[in-house]
Amino acid sequence: MPLVLRDDEIRQALTMADAVGAIEEACREQAAGTAIAVERRVMWLPNGWMRLMPGALVASGVMGYKALHRIGNSVRYAVHLFDCTSGEAIAILDGWYVTAVRTGAAAGVAAKHLAPPAATSLGVIGSGAEARTQVEAVAAVRGLRSGKVYSRDPGRRERFAREMTERLGVAFQAVDQPEKAIDGAEILVAATNTAGTGPALFGRWLHKGLHVNSIGSTLKDQREIDPAVWTFADRIVIDSRHVLEESGDGIAAREANALDEGKVAELHDVVAGTRPGRTDATQTTLYKSVGLGLHDVAVAFRIFRQARARGLGRDIDDFQALVPASG
Amino acid sequence: MPLVLRDDEIRQALTMADAVGAIEEACREQAAGTAIAVERRVMWLPNGWMRLMPGALVASGVMGYKALHRIGNSVRYAVHLFDCTSGEAIAILDGWYVTAVRTGAAAGVAAKHLAPPAATSLGVIGSGAEARTQVEAVAAVRGLRSGKVYSRDPGRRERFAREMTERLGVAFQAVDQPEKAIDGAEILVAATNTAGTGPALFGRWLHKGLHVNSIGSTLKDQREIDPAVWTFADRIVIDSRHVLEESGDGIAAREANALDEGKVAELHDVVAGTRPGRTDATQTTLYKSVGLGLHDVAVAFRIFRQARARGLGRDIDDFQALVPASG
Repeated sequence: MPLVLRDDEIRQALTMADAVGAIEEACREQAAGTAIAVERRVMWLPNGWMRLMPGALVASGVMGYKALHRIGNSVRYAVHLFDCTSGEAIAILDGWYVTAVRTGAAAGVAAKHLAPPAATSLGVIGSGAEARTQVEAVAAVRGLRSGKVYSRDPGRRERFAREMTERLGVAFQAVDQPEKAIDGAEILVAATNTAGTGPALFGRWLHKGLHVNSIGSTLKDQREIDPAVWTFADRIVIDSRHVLEESGDGIAAREANALDEGKVAELHDVVAGTRPGRTDATQTTLYKSVGLGLHDVAVAFRIFRQARARGLGRDIDDFQALVPASG
Repeated sequence: MPLVLRDDEIRQALTMADAVGAIEEACREQAAGTAIAVERRVMWLPNGWMRLMPGALVASGVMGYKALHRIGNSVRYAVHLFDCTSGEAIAILDGWYVTAVRTGAAAGVAAKHLAPPAATSLGVIGSGAEARTQVEAVAAVRGLRSGKVYSRDPGRRERFAREMTERLGVAFQAVDQPEKAIDGAEILVAATNTAGTGPALFGRWLHKGLHVNSIGSTLKDQREIDPAVWTFADRIVIDSRHVLEESGDGIAAREANALDEGKVAELHDVVAGTRPGRTDATQTTLYKSVGLGLHDVAVAFRIFRQARARGLGRDIDDFQALVPASG
């Protein structure tokens, strides 16, 4: 009987530190060859799109997929999990927070392995839900002491600074130019909504030694960083190769000839230690992500187990017949 | 609130004639350009696979996907439907019967447009669940008077003949060689389980004027017909271009140079009349299918509406938060 979990129950069941742990575990399974990551399928609609993103963690015993669709100005998400050994449906989760928290947690894992170990100052460009989980994820892996946030809307950046100050007990300041958020930062988070507006972060604004997480370009029409960011970075870590083919930023970097493949590694290789992370305080590091169904499955599975242990959610009757396979 | 439908409820809610109607409607939407068919995504697992198959009927107002997975020797199916305009989840259905009935109904639509109009005699190779719905679909579009069935297992073919005789009121006879099922038939249905065993139907067994439905090769490792069937056919109609790239039969035909692209049309073009069906009593026609998520969505939507009207199934609370889109 699958357990159905709503947004409020999911938020109760998981901390950001749990999510970072789940992503690191998934990375280790990827490196060991027991995780399966498959390219997402996108269906374009006249007024939106639908995406299906499968993934499996065979050693952990779970497989599944995320299904999300945008119609007009709203998106709905769901994650479906199945037992890898029996095939039984085990959970159906609202996928909104799962998406934000897994994107944050994967960037947290990247920051853990790439940011200067003693980093305390954070710059943020963007003030949406994804920017919040990005900041929480960095706070889970580094001892932050100060933050600055830029967002085009003054009201939104002020509110973001207030909320982060309260939630993390770290002084956050709203600034009126992106360059001011970057100035003096050791870690920079870009989490913007940039469809149709062009890049929000430019390479000429960066300084040496900085670690950058950029998560806001997951479709061809979304741009977050300009090609000069790719050129300025000494090491580039990606959540999957799809970044280079499916994100507007990746495509623009390739077209501008700004992509030096020798600098690029996948996150799981860095976590497993088969490719180097930061080796020098003066290196500039860049983490780019497009989102992996595998990460959704990993974080949703952690949520499911913790929700089950705490009695959260409700079971629905199993509606799937068990059919003998043909062939 | 999505309506959850189990197998027994689904079977109550739909006749084969309803399903044939739903597929014809979907074909007309495809021809009119308001249907969206997207290639399925397959994830291979150590002990099975998962497939995700999206589709949308924009004019009808529905979109969704089928998710199915095989683990060991069992398969589980689900179809998820969403309102195309609001994005709301409207139904979650067990996808087993949906799959069998939509595969049957699409082949029924093919037979309606390709088989000799006065055909009364049917040959069947195969005796599984898919063979049953194939026969029902042909019976829904032609006035059958006799049938013959071959299947390797004598007990299974005898039981199949008895069941079809009872269900359709048409005399079905079990035969001990595939050639005997073909002899004298005007329509031939091949619906076999052939992974690893090679083709079950050979071109040298066929006669002119026959219409053949072949639905048993949907993955690379599944073979149902040999390349000579493709050569012998005067017209070939496929449910989608994926037949030529993803089915073992399509791949083998291309490799054997047995595929004359000029003979090939898609089902929706024949239904809409933009490509010819049978134009001559001596023509041999072949319908090959690999299965379309679009057809699952079309038939599941019909089931949903009829189940809703009859008060079948149960609603579950909507578990998906409505999230403002970024960008």
